[in-house]
Amino acid sequence: MTPQRVTLITLGVTDLAAAKAFYAALGWQEHGKGQVGVAFYQMHGAVLALFGLADLAADQGRPEATLGTGAATLAQNFATEAEVDAAYAAALAAGGTALKAPQKVFWGGYSGYWADPWGHVWEVAMNPFWPMAADGSLTLPDSAE
Amino acid sequence: MTPQRVTLITLGVTDLAAAKAFYAALGWQEHGKGQVGVAFYQMHGAVLALFGLADLAADQGRPEATLGTGAATLAQNFATEAEVDAAYAAALAAGGTALKAPQKVFWGGYSGYWADPWGHVWEVAMNPFWPMAADGSLTLPDSAE
Repeated sequence: MTPQRVTLITLGVTDLAAAKAFYAALGWQEHGKGQVGVAFYQMHGAVLALFGLADLAADQGRPEATLGTGAATLAQNFATEAEVDAAYAAALAAGGTALKAPQKVFWGGYSGYWADPWGHVWEVAMNPFWPMAADGSLTLPDSAE
Repeated sequence: MTPQRVTLITLGVTDLAAAKAFYAALGWQEHGKGQVGVAFYQMHGAVLALFGLADLAADQGRPEATLGTGAATLAQNFATEAEVDAAYAAALAAGGTALKAPQKVFWGGYSGYWADPWGHVWEVAMNPFWPMAADGSLTLPDSAE
């Protein structure tokens, strides 16, 4: 079983600087002082991210050309690696397609990707720097700059 | 300016019944008694929807074959039509692509679609049956069955 939540929406873009400028023009304020290669935006209990398309493809463990629908991902964050593993297993058991088995990743967390039968890509992740609220919501910590 | 929120994520699928069965197998519970042609799932202050791919293309005012990334949409709900118009205008002013100008739609609300320069599709909508909370969050009313 997976919890009924989306905590992070990631938009893959070919030009991150241009994408940040576009969303800034819309009035969106980036969280913190900004990071290299990714931009985060706090919403009400969830986060929107902008991420390079090639980086997103690499993060999903597949070629950029195959992204299509998957160039937008839906993420579920969890408190523990065991919960990530369980959610990933539940997705495959339900008929989801394995993209990248959950594994320790360079930013210090644990992440996997699966796709539903219509190509929509979900990430399941544990980020030790992003504590989860009891209601399954995600609020960026002040230190996430 | 547009508010920093996503209140509805819609996944376009080729077989809605199969999609509902897939998400049910994952443990997701559909809101209310179910509607014909669409399924809604309450999250924390936001909603996930499953919708037929052809219906989604029609709703966006373009052919199904062109959906690609747009087969997942990000929606911002508003309290008034004027706010929808303002958000749509702000998107075009920022460089967004017009897909469908905000207009009264068959389900009793008011909706438009625009795409960011990377093809990510946003819906801006006013749904008189879905009241917005002060914090910009969306909770399905009990009557939405």
